[in-house]
Amino acid sequence: MSVRMRHKKNADIRMERCACVWEKEPELRRGCWRKSFNMAEDAQFFVEFGCGKGAFTAGLATANPDTAILAVERCKDVIVMAMEKAVNASLTNAHYVMGDITELLDSFDDGEVDRLYINFCDPWPKKRHTDRRLTYRDFLAHYARILKDDGEIQFKTDNRGLFEFSISEFSQSGYALFDVSLDLHSSDFEGNIMTEYEKQFSERGQPIYRLVARKIKK
Amino acid sequence: MSVRMRHKKNADIRMERCACVWEKEPELRRGCWRKSFNMAEDAQFFVEFGCGKGAFTAGLATANPDTAILAVERCKDVIVMAMEKAVNASLTNAHYVMGDITELLDSFDDGEVDRLYINFCDPWPKKRHTDRRLTYRDFLAHYARILKDDGEIQFKTDNRGLFEFSISEFSQSGYALFDVSLDLHSSDFEGNIMTEYEKQFSERGQPIYRLVARKIKK
Repeated sequence: MSVRMRHKKNADIRMERCACVWEKEPELRRGCWRKSFNMAEDAQFFVEFGCGKGAFTAGLATANPDTAILAVERCKDVIVMAMEKAVNASLTNAHYVMGDITELLDSFDDGEVDRLYINFCDPWPKKRHTDRRLTYRDFLAHYARILKDDGEIQFKTDNRGLFEFSISEFSQSGYALFDVSLDLHSSDFEGNIMTEYEKQFSERGQPIYRLVARKIKK
Repeated sequence: MSVRMRHKKNADIRMERCACVWEKEPELRRGCWRKSFNMAEDAQFFVEFGCGKGAFTAGLATANPDTAILAVERCKDVIVMAMEKAVNASLTNAHYVMGDITELLDSFDDGEVDRLYINFCDPWPKKRHTDRRLTYRDFLAHYARILKDDGEIQFKTDNRGLFEFSISEFSQSGYALFDVSLDLHSSDFEGNIMTEYEKQFSERGQPIYRLVARKIKK
């Protein structure tokens, strides 16, 4: 048996040990996400795109024990660490989906989500890959559907080009912007929860960009 | 006679020498600005707020000979230099108003202006002075009135806090944002015309922020 195969098999076993926080069939949850957390219908429901190793998710879940938090990550070897963080900390309000964000959007009903987090997504710097950026206008239209009327998107990145692009896309897609920061860690913003990537990046003295985008009421 | 008085008297004489580009009674021009430039009704009309010594105005007027350009500046000792630049270069499409921008807004008819330039305005960093910033929401509402339907505002600043604030204000006040740059001089933007201040500031290696804001059609 190759090292690679053993590695994969181990990840599968570790995933199964975290079954209590693993959402294996998200498409069946559409319209009833809060129920899957054993939470009331008026509980807040946050979704994080690209949770990586899950430091942000765990921090968010700890700070908001009455909020249902769904974290999405494509890579098995990474999400398994995020799930283990939750299980080891006995967090019951953070659940995890392994998969592609763009394929998951149909798993949310109209207005079902209170808040979206997009943290340090792939900047796709080449112009021909514009439509892959998670703040591309077509995605923003999808998010507007699943967000409730006063719902919001909290967006962080270290990539200047992506941030410039995203400001334009949000403002041209029916979102108003709030709390714009061009250097988050030297701003007076309190309560920031760092991702693993953010910690490494900001330790090198690079600026972190952040904004909050809210749907403009029609 | 004191030095200060002689100085002032000289400025007055120099202003009078530039009478051909000096708009002394802007309130009488409301609704007929293009006529005062001897231009057709369909000519473009740009207004620059805070022209300083007028390098930007002169550059803009030279690059756009068929556009009527009105530059506004409060300080006599400064605007006189701007006016002399225009006269010495025989520019006939740049006119000048000495006065306060906020008092000038009533001198424009609804939809009379094609484009506004706000270059390096006072950042008013203290919170209690928020409503003095030229990108404060009350001003943006005034600008929306005087701008034509697809009119735009081009905004540049070196002040990070003012730029963060302005992004929020524009996006919350019915403007969509385009061409956002967090470091104009290292971007691929072509045709930038520098102000005196911008030249000095960017030579010290500091970033210049820029955006274009367009009225969202209702």
